[in-house]
Amino acid sequence: MTIGIDMMGGDYAPLEAVKGVAQYLSADTGNTHLVLIGDAPEIEKLVAEHQVPADRITIVHASEVIGMHEHPTKALREKQNSSIAIGFGLLAKGKTDAIISAGNTGAMLVGALFSIKALEGVLRPTISTIIPKSNGSTGLLLDVGLNADCKPEQLNQFAVMGSVYAKLILGIENPRVGLINVGEEEGKGNLLAQATYPLLKENKHIHFIGNIEGRDVLEDKADVMVCEGFTGNIILKMAESLYEIASKQKIRNEYFDRFNFEIYGGTPVLGVAKPVIIGHGISHAKAFRNMIALAQLMLEKDVMSSMKDELIS
Amino acid sequence: MTIGIDMMGGDYAPLEAVKGVAQYLSADTGNTHLVLIGDAPEIEKLVAEHQVPADRITIVHASEVIGMHEHPTKALREKQNSSIAIGFGLLAKGKTDAIISAGNTGAMLVGALFSIKALEGVLRPTISTIIPKSNGSTGLLLDVGLNADCKPEQLNQFAVMGSVYAKLILGIENPRVGLINVGEEEGKGNLLAQATYPLLKENKHIHFIGNIEGRDVLEDKADVMVCEGFTGNIILKMAESLYEIASKQKIRNEYFDRFNFEIYGGTPVLGVAKPVIIGHGISHAKAFRNMIALAQLMLEKDVMSSMKDELIS
Repeated sequence: MTIGIDMMGGDYAPLEAVKGVAQYLSADTGNTHLVLIGDAPEIEKLVAEHQVPADRITIVHASEVIGMHEHPTKALREKQNSSIAIGFGLLAKGKTDAIISAGNTGAMLVGALFSIKALEGVLRPTISTIIPKSNGSTGLLLDVGLNADCKPEQLNQFAVMGSVYAKLILGIENPRVGLINVGEEEGKGNLLAQATYPLLKENKHIHFIGNIEGRDVLEDKADVMVCEGFTGNIILKMAESLYEIASKQKIRNEYFDRFNFEIYGGTPVLGVAKPVIIGHGISHAKAFRNMIALAQLMLEKDVMSSMKDELIS
Repeated sequence: MTIGIDMMGGDYAPLEAVKGVAQYLSADTGNTHLVLIGDAPEIEKLVAEHQVPADRITIVHASEVIGMHEHPTKALREKQNSSIAIGFGLLAKGKTDAIISAGNTGAMLVGALFSIKALEGVLRPTISTIIPKSNGSTGLLLDVGLNADCKPEQLNQFAVMGSVYAKLILGIENPRVGLINVGEEEGKGNLLAQATYPLLKENKHIHFIGNIEGRDVLEDKADVMVCEGFTGNIILKMAESLYEIASKQKIRNEYFDRFNFEIYGGTPVLGVAKPVIIGHGISHAKAFRNMIALAQLMLEKDVMSSMKDELIS
């Protein structure tokens, strides 16, 4: 399999991207091939310095970079020689099987939505995050910002896609799905949550356990936590802030360390035909290494096909 | 001034309520009079045991109690001799100036909405919570669950009511108002946030600083944080869970201790004509004492009149 990497995205690119590639390849004994997209002369220099095995990589030159604060659609249209535009071009043509970037999140989302196809039957792709649970386990929250306004049918699909991801990637057998809500009983909530509950309840493809509340998000109550992207984004960023807050309070604690989201790598776009993984702007080598490993695992487990099967059957 | 207290509400009523009354009166040298509503024989016994000064209280008998899990509207209609129903009756008739309860939250809200009037000009009353900020200061978040679906005009009013409360009760001069959102720039967000932003921007009665994100909720960025009640409720309950999580992780930290919301007492319903304060079911004496003090402060500062002035001028 072949994974494309935008080497120019993120605050510490391309150096940390190259270091991540080197770390990944030194540990990986498989035959995954990496396509490094970006400023070729600079990447060539760095891969030589970091002893990246030449037979495992291909460098593809990109003369432009989309900045972190550029308007996504405009930048993708105007900068066709940018690393992200070229990366999606390779993915669309089948030259790569996945794409990774710690660059402009909006441009990555636009690329995911328009350069490659949504999975058959998917109303709207979604992005998720893992949530560290206080007992040491890990949950999945979605949507976390791609879809600020949602319809009940979309949330119902998020539940299916999240369940497949939780099972195949997080290794959770029969993941419990909870609907994020303001109360436990059926009938609680805003109009969206009220309308979503019966859909989840009747959905044979998921293991729905009912509503979960804000107090349950960090507790091990549901494995897959479903909400629209507005609430999900607030939860995600509030969770992320816990790491910094604990640090400022000089709290050394294993659990709060897990809110350092940078260590996880990136978040995949779910519901599109191929793995698209978006990293934090602050990604260091470890994050790049983890993102490559995640793309590889998603390809190995054929997550996309399983999602499609669950959604259209 | 005269404050009514539902002595039968909460997990530890009426004992903790009586202890809270005793604590409050022993520290208060003013002439606030407390009306204790509930099982008169039991309350008489307990006030004697706890040396509550007889000239500062009036006991009003209520032969029924609304349970924590009863249907609010049904219970209020059917249990007209319950402590909450009698409490709102006294408030509506002007026999008391405020009401406090740690009982059935729904029944308290229904009482607040239907037994007494909304303030002139208020579209919908709201409930708020204080949020401990990591630098030691305190913010206000609203709505936290009374209005799961909102219109932009309601959020605009929450901003005004929250600002008045933050100024008069929290003592924050010129409180900064932030709109909870998924991004910093104007134009970000779901349809509600997008439509609310311009209203807040043009509102002369508040000091609007723009959007704030999930990561800003626990940081000292905005004093008054505005959102619909669905997101607000998730944030509140997630914040509350931090206290228990820190305890479980054996973290002893002053900041995380502040997430023990029980110590604050209760949350007032804002936008109604008189102070209605709703406490946690787990309220102990300190919470009752704090709720009485809050009701007194709200009356002293005439918070309701200031809100009305800001809303209709």
